[in-house]
Parts: sequence; structure tokens; C-alpha cells
Amino acid sequence: MTSEKYMLLALKEAQKAFLADEVPVGAVIVDQAGKILSKAHNKTEHGLDPTAHAEILAIRKACQKLKQKRLWDCTLVVTLEPCAMCATAISMARISKVIIGAKDEKNGAVLSGVKFFESATCHFKPEVETGILEQECAQILKDFFKLKR
Amino acid sequence: MTSEKYMLLALKEAQKAFLADEVPVGAVIVDQAGKILSKAHNKTEHGLDPTAHAEILAIRKACQKLKQKRLWDCTLVVTLEPCAMCATAISMARISKVIIGAKDEKNGAVLSGVKFFESATCHFKPEVETGILEQECAQILKDFFKLKR
Repeated sequence: MTSEKYMLLALKEAQKAFLADEVPVGAVIVDQAGKILSKAHNKTEHGLDPTAHAEILAIRKACQKLKQKRLWDCTLVVTLEPCAMCATAISMARISKVIIGAKDEKNGAVLSGVKFFESATCHFKPEVETGILEQECAQILKDFFKLKR
Repeated sequence: MTSEKYMLLALKEAQKAFLADEVPVGAVIVDQAGKILSKAHNKTEHGLDPTAHAEILAIRKACQKLKQKRLWDCTLVVTLEPCAMCATAISMARISKVIIGAKDEKNGAVLSGVKFFESATCHFKPEVETGILEQECAQILKDFFKLKR
């Protein structure tokens, strides 16, 4: 599958979050053969868990599935630029590639903010692809926060 | 209790991690009245979970206990300087104060590295107290890694 096809799956997860009244961010993790290892969406509200971002939940699920704490040669596809918590988790999980939809200048830590992967305390740097279905990934967030105002 | 007494409890958690062959880091979360809300130690190996740092587990437990996703007016006491994942989680959980034992120049993100709380994308900055039982907190890590070599 292409990056766009995987991002559509991540967007489907974001839509599930939207319908559950959670900030609509979704993520999928794919192995080297293109097989989906995990899908997840943001669950901070219903999970009563500030760490329950889509990326963290997807990493945990994929590790449980593979019965290992490293996700070598895997790709994480996420609708919104990861925050510093998630960027660090991605690096620690040894995920090879990150595909990002929308930028997040307020909370992001890959292209924005502390740019964790470029920092001296990042000891494993994944490849990064950005701007995949950027408009669609940003629009669902705009729609969500418009309803909240 | 004083910071030292809470740090001794965090060190007890680190000792549990040591005995379980996990990197010996422990954390406790205390509420405004001084009541212990949660205790946790690093479980990345046995949990097959790269996100299972002591701080993340302690935050999740405390949130479940209080049935809320914010830990306003709480203090997190941790034997090792938090990494960028944990520092971000601490900020997002709105923890008021962080008490740190040993510094971590390699992976830390409070005093070292990206210094997340000082960054423009940190929107809630906790008070930080450092160097509490620093020798003891550093020694258990040294002992652990000496055995691994």
C-alpha cells in the first residue's frame, strides 16, 4: 500500500475518536511486509489517561502482538505530528519510519518544538515523511474544535 | 513527610525493579495532603512495553485512582531524571511538582537534553526539586549496569 492508503486507515481511527468525543487523532503501525500490526485512536478522555495518545496505544498494541518491546523495521502512520511524549516513545520503540499527516505547531515535537529526533538525547532517529493527506488530517481536528467552542 | 522520605519510597520501587531485572527506576505520586496515590517501577522488559517507565505507570495509576485525567496539586517523586516522554506526560497530567533523585545526562529531558519544561511547546511547567538522595538513586543504577556488563 502507499502512504496515502495507510493514512486513510489512520484517518478512520481519527473519525472513531471524533465520534467518541475524543480529540480526533489516529495511528496505525505497519510491519516491513505491509501488514497492519495495530490501529488506535486517542483515548485520553474516556480512558482517564493523559498518556493515551493514539501513538502510545498503537505502540503498546503492536509490541504485545509481536511479544517484543522493539518495533524494528515498522512504520507508524499518524494523522497529527507527534508530541514530545510520543516522539520519544517512537524512538525508544525503534520504529524505522514515521508518516505524518497534519503539522502541530502548538504541541508537535518532530517538525516543531523540541524536534526530538534532532536532539542530542535521541539515540535512534526514524525516517520521517510528512504532509500525507495533510488537509484531511487537519480538517477533522478543525471540525472537532469548532464544535467545542 | 519530607522529600527524602518520599524518595525512599521511590527507591524501594527501584529496588523492586532491580530484583525483577528491570532498569531500577521508581516513582511515587503524592497528593496535596501528602497521601500516596500511586507507586510504580520500570516494567519495560517484563511488560514488553517501551512506554512502561515508572513515571508513566505511576501517572496512569494515580489518574485511575482519582478517576480524572489531571493530577493538579500532586507531586511526582522519581529516582531518575525523567526522559522527554515522561517529562511531557508529567506536564500534560498537570502535575504541580517533580522531585528528582539522580540526573540523567544521556536520556534526561528536565535538567538535560531538550529541557522540555523550558521549551515553547510546554504549556504547563511544574516546580522542580533535584538532587534528593542523588547518590543512592544513582548507585542502584550503577550496580545494575555493572551486573549487565
